[in-house]
Amino acid sequence: MTAQPVDILLTNATVVTMNPKKDVIFAGAIAINKDTIIEVGPATALNKKYQAAKTIDCRGDIVSPGLVNAHTHVPMTLLRGLSDDLRLDVWLYGFMMPVEREFVTPEFSYLGTLLASAEMIRSGITTFCDMYYFEDQVAEAAAKAGMRAICGQTILKFPSPDASSYDDSLEYCRQFVKKWRGHPLIVPAVAPHAPYTATPEMLTACAALALEYDVPLHIHVAETAMEQENNKTEHGATVVPWLQKHNIFKPKTIAAHCVHLDDTEMITLKNTGTGVAHCPSSNLKLASGVAPVHKMLKLGLRVGIGTDGPASNNDLDMLEETRLAAFLQKGIFADPTLLPAKKAWELATSGGAEAIHMGHLIGSLETGKKADIIVINVKGTHQTPRFSHSEDTIYSQLVYAAKSTDVCHVLINGRLLMEDSALLTLDEADLHQKAIAMSEKIDTFIRTREKDLLSKLLAISSGVVPVETFEIQSKVRIDDIAAIEAKLGELNAVTINRTSVRKQYDTYFCFEDKTLGRIRYREDELTANDGTPDVLYRISLIGPAVERVFNHSIILTRSRYSVPADKSRRFYYEYFQPDQKIEIAKTRKRYHITFRNTHFAANLDSLADIGRSYLEVKSRTWSAKDAEEKAQLMGELFLLLGIDPSQKETLTEYIDLAQE
Amino acid sequence: MTAQPVDILLTNATVVTMNPKKDVIFAGAIAINKDTIIEVGPATALNKKYQAAKTIDCRGDIVSPGLVNAHTHVPMTLLRGLSDDLRLDVWLYGFMMPVEREFVTPEFSYLGTLLASAEMIRSGITTFCDMYYFEDQVAEAAAKAGMRAICGQTILKFPSPDASSYDDSLEYCRQFVKKWRGHPLIVPAVAPHAPYTATPEMLTACAALALEYDVPLHIHVAETAMEQENNKTEHGATVVPWLQKHNIFKPKTIAAHCVHLDDTEMITLKNTGTGVAHCPSSNLKLASGVAPVHKMLKLGLRVGIGTDGPASNNDLDMLEETRLAAFLQKGIFADPTLLPAKKAWELATSGGAEAIHMGHLIGSLETGKKADIIVINVKGTHQTPRFSHSEDTIYSQLVYAAKSTDVCHVLINGRLLMEDSALLTLDEADLHQKAIAMSEKIDTFIRTREKDLLSKLLAISSGVVPVETFEIQSKVRIDDIAAIEAKLGELNAVTINRTSVRKQYDTYFCFEDKTLGRIRYREDELTANDGTPDVLYRISLIGPAVERVFNHSIILTRSRYSVPADKSRRFYYEYFQPDQKIEIAKTRKRYHITFRNTHFAANLDSLADIGRSYLEVKSRTWSAKDAEEKAQLMGELFLLLGIDPSQKETLTEYIDLAQE
Repeated sequence: MTAQPVDILLTNATVVTMNPKKDVIFAGAIAINKDTIIEVGPATALNKKYQAAKTIDCRGDIVSPGLVNAHTHVPMTLLRGLSDDLRLDVWLYGFMMPVEREFVTPEFSYLGTLLASAEMIRSGITTFCDMYYFEDQVAEAAAKAGMRAICGQTILKFPSPDASSYDDSLEYCRQFVKKWRGHPLIVPAVAPHAPYTATPEMLTACAALALEYDVPLHIHVAETAMEQENNKTEHGATVVPWLQKHNIFKPKTIAAHCVHLDDTEMITLKNTGTGVAHCPSSNLKLASGVAPVHKMLKLGLRVGIGTDGPASNNDLDMLEETRLAAFLQKGIFADPTLLPAKKAWELATSGGAEAIHMGHLIGSLETGKKADIIVINVKGTHQTPRFSHSEDTIYSQLVYAAKSTDVCHVLINGRLLMEDSALLTLDEADLHQKAIAMSEKIDTFIRTREKDLLSKLLAISSGVVPVETFEIQSKVRIDDIAAIEAKLGELNAVTINRTSVRKQYDTYFCFEDKTLGRIRYREDELTANDGTPDVLYRISLIGPAVERVFNHSIILTRSRYSVPADKSRRFYYEYFQPDQKIEIAKTRKRYHITFRNTHFAANLDSLADIGRSYLEVKSRTWSAKDAEEKAQLMGELFLLLGIDPSQKETLTEYIDLAQE
Repeated sequence: MTAQPVDILLTNATVVTMNPKKDVIFAGAIAINKDTIIEVGPATALNKKYQAAKTIDCRGDIVSPGLVNAHTHVPMTLLRGLSDDLRLDVWLYGFMMPVEREFVTPEFSYLGTLLASAEMIRSGITTFCDMYYFEDQVAEAAAKAGMRAICGQTILKFPSPDASSYDDSLEYCRQFVKKWRGHPLIVPAVAPHAPYTATPEMLTACAALALEYDVPLHIHVAETAMEQENNKTEHGATVVPWLQKHNIFKPKTIAAHCVHLDDTEMITLKNTGTGVAHCPSSNLKLASGVAPVHKMLKLGLRVGIGTDGPASNNDLDMLEETRLAAFLQKGIFADPTLLPAKKAWELATSGGAEAIHMGHLIGSLETGKKADIIVINVKGTHQTPRFSHSEDTIYSQLVYAAKSTDVCHVLINGRLLMEDSALLTLDEADLHQKAIAMSEKIDTFIRTREKDLLSKLLAISSGVVPVETFEIQSKVRIDDIAAIEAKLGELNAVTINRTSVRKQYDTYFCFEDKTLGRIRYREDELTANDGTPDVLYRISLIGPAVERVFNHSIILTRSRYSVPADKSRRFYYEYFQPDQKIEIAKTRKRYHITFRNTHFAANLDSLADIGRSYLEVKSRTWSAKDAEEKAQLMGELFLLLGIDPSQKETLTEYIDLAQE
């Protein structure tokens, strides 16, 4: 009998098949022709039976199905390490979104995907399931690298780098799906970002699009406890039932994260055949928690493992991720027998393939499956010694001891992409150079912004332009508010137009470098006529400079930039990273008065914490002449009120009291 | 001015000094002479100032203090991956301790330490803090490898591989401390294993020994919640106060794990200057939990990071450990700002050095410190791109993106141990060969044991030899227990010596391979004369063979090996890993009778679950002739009781009923 010609023979290996019986073949071989595995069996038999154009001797190495990265955002590889150790909102609104608005283009997605592919191939990932912007370029780059990918085009209810509305986004997605359907490596997918960034109509339209073209749907689900809380408040239901109502689980759906699900929600995911992408590193790093994977597996869900994007990980290392997944179930759910190594390796290979709805094509080494195969060198010191007394020890070795850098050869769809740790389809040096050029531009963007509080404020003001104001003002300590009020009422030269009472809670963020100015976060609680309070939140940059000092400690201040504060005080604190935080609470009775045809605000402020009261008189101004005139008038007003404004205790801001 | 001669100059590097100000010097250099850092500063200046015998150009690389592995058991590297995914007791009593009893010798500790040193040097560890047996050999091997180490000689209240009692152990430790004190690389230490393996006298003696020679004391503290619970039950106090009572925190103490401490205990550790070794991988893998490191740091404790032994990790990778430490605090304590990268790197270097009481010598790159230095290549794809807009990004890169395999050069005490990833003091190929020879012997030991339930039973019987018994017996179903009891009383030939009533709860562990026999776990609840129950637990191996069948279904059984069961049923289940578990509960009234001068037990058994009753008559036997005579007598007794023992429903064991 003459030997049968095949393209590639991997031989003399320990073959970890991950087939349904979990066969491990010691001294095994795999014959590959074109894109397909022809046979898996003992090396002695296959060496004779096949005549290979290329034979790779894997003596002592482990051959495994390629790893499936079930959830990622690969272009974000270009943002690796941009900002870490921040709360999700600061990270997202303070860094990721401003940088993405500025830098994410088709070229960014293309370059980021090539760089990520280099890293993924190196670490034994053969398939990745992506979600990002300009996914057409992600697909182009993955195909060029030779990687298998599900490319999910992001759809958001907000404008995004690749679409000004979700209608545009859906249309872009439709064209994208039509273009890539049927590609041997690329599976296009519809990716509504998350429940909290979607409208019901948008979700229904996304599901319909995925069903129309029979492509997967990729979505973030229940990543944080807050997402569940908000969903209950806004929609009266937990996330999964609400998504189900909008058909989200009718397509071949991949739900990323699923950290906070109740049993009913898990059962829905099981019954709808939805795959779960567990992302342990990212969920820890962003403090989302640990998904109850052991419970999902007990209930029969399909679970894979994902790296998430390298901006929140910060790498694309499935071996690290798989080990962490196994460790976490044991440590957090207090049972060391949970997610044993064998099961963890299944999640990284065949289980992951099932979770992303590709189990019929990839995930195990079996005749007829696509040849997505990795070879792992197990001869390193960190893998020595090795045990073989039970069937489980080889999985222990893969999950608990092997490192991604032990992967030496990688085949995808029958094509050799890495041989002896050298990449065959990508020019790494060129990619490094381009990636570093990109990071240098981003560094400059951030540095400029960080040096300057106004730029930092602008970066998170989502289109609202802060307004600059000039004020002329003077504060003076008083003993008796009622006496001043009486005087204001008595003076003929003063007309009281209206009064208001408010409580103001100010937090000043101060910096060692005084030239930066200060940030003030103000909660302004007005009491309306009917007694109900109305709270306004504003964030202001208060310039460092006193422009001019007039007689009687009357000053002209400038550069007070102010925007409505739509995020929490904690957010701004962590975003601006001040060296000091000072809180001032006061009750302010404001008299809007006219004095010699000029409007002033006379604020009677009680600072209960320090038991002092002040009169602040101020007026907006717009020219040097106007300022001088108003300063003159203010001095006059103080004298009429019986106050010497040049007395010692006057000050620019109450914050200076706290710093005395 | 002529250049000053030095031994080594590391130059053109990004120097992450980890000095108190956390200076980072871009384009920096370090001059080293003998074992000491002479100067750290800008490369331009140092290149001119020093004439080095050896210059290493580290262009683009990061130079950092070597990593401090604050807790490990390095010889256990030889047991890497021996058994995983098991509960702590099964892992410890079922695998680790039997294997250690059999294999741990001075040669084992020596070889294991050399192998571990190769792995540690490769991953940038320059100092390790150990605890094991034959620590003299650990010290020898570490010194040969050129590593810095605190070598803690284990002291246990039980016999151990290197001592038959704790007195022996203390004496061995004293000699060991005297021998190694003052060595340039090795610091000997006293290592009472843990509170739960110590007596009060032993703890006090250990503390006194450590104080006498001013050496560190290394101990496991509060690794599991159960340890705390048991300590409260046994000693009426949590672990730390109890240890403090026995002077354990008077020496320079290193407390490993500290997963379950209350605030008071943490404050005691702070006030006594005790260092904490946080072991995140091991604590997860063995399901102990996550230590509240962020709280310890807030309270001002000294915390380092340890890999623990590779049998519970399964590697010695401090980069992995540091990343995990940072991830876990965020994810488990729900705050992404906890343990930021900069602080995590501090724990791995200068903080770890403080925790092991060596902060004056190592942990940072400063003039006068010992030259323990690593160079990390940051040019790999997984570290590209890199950002530099803030002081924190370099730590992000080190903690979240760098891999241990990126470490390219390692110096310890001024000596170059690894250059361009090649080890200079160890012959790795030789170590691999010896380690694999060891693992093959251990594999054979385990395989033999696993094939044979008796060997498995012996392995966990801590010196108690199971007793083999032969019995002649017959069981027969009866309808009316009272009628049989009445008959026993009436028969002249029968003398009733005494009776007892007991409840027996049997669990049978059965195997597909019937030739293995069965394991029976019995809870035997005797009701004493005063009515108080007394429960005995026994674990028995019941041989598969019926030796002989006599008339009337009377059988001779053999190989019933039995020992007191000192562990839980769950333990034995997980240890023996049966294919099936069958439970039988019965109430047994036992008549100890004499019939024709021969003793028999007549057991009247009610199996409430299946609503049946049986008479079992049995007698121990010791020879074929004796067995035959007793079989004859038993047949006669059955006939006198009006029972035909050859009726259909007789059986060997009640378990056969459950399998009908």
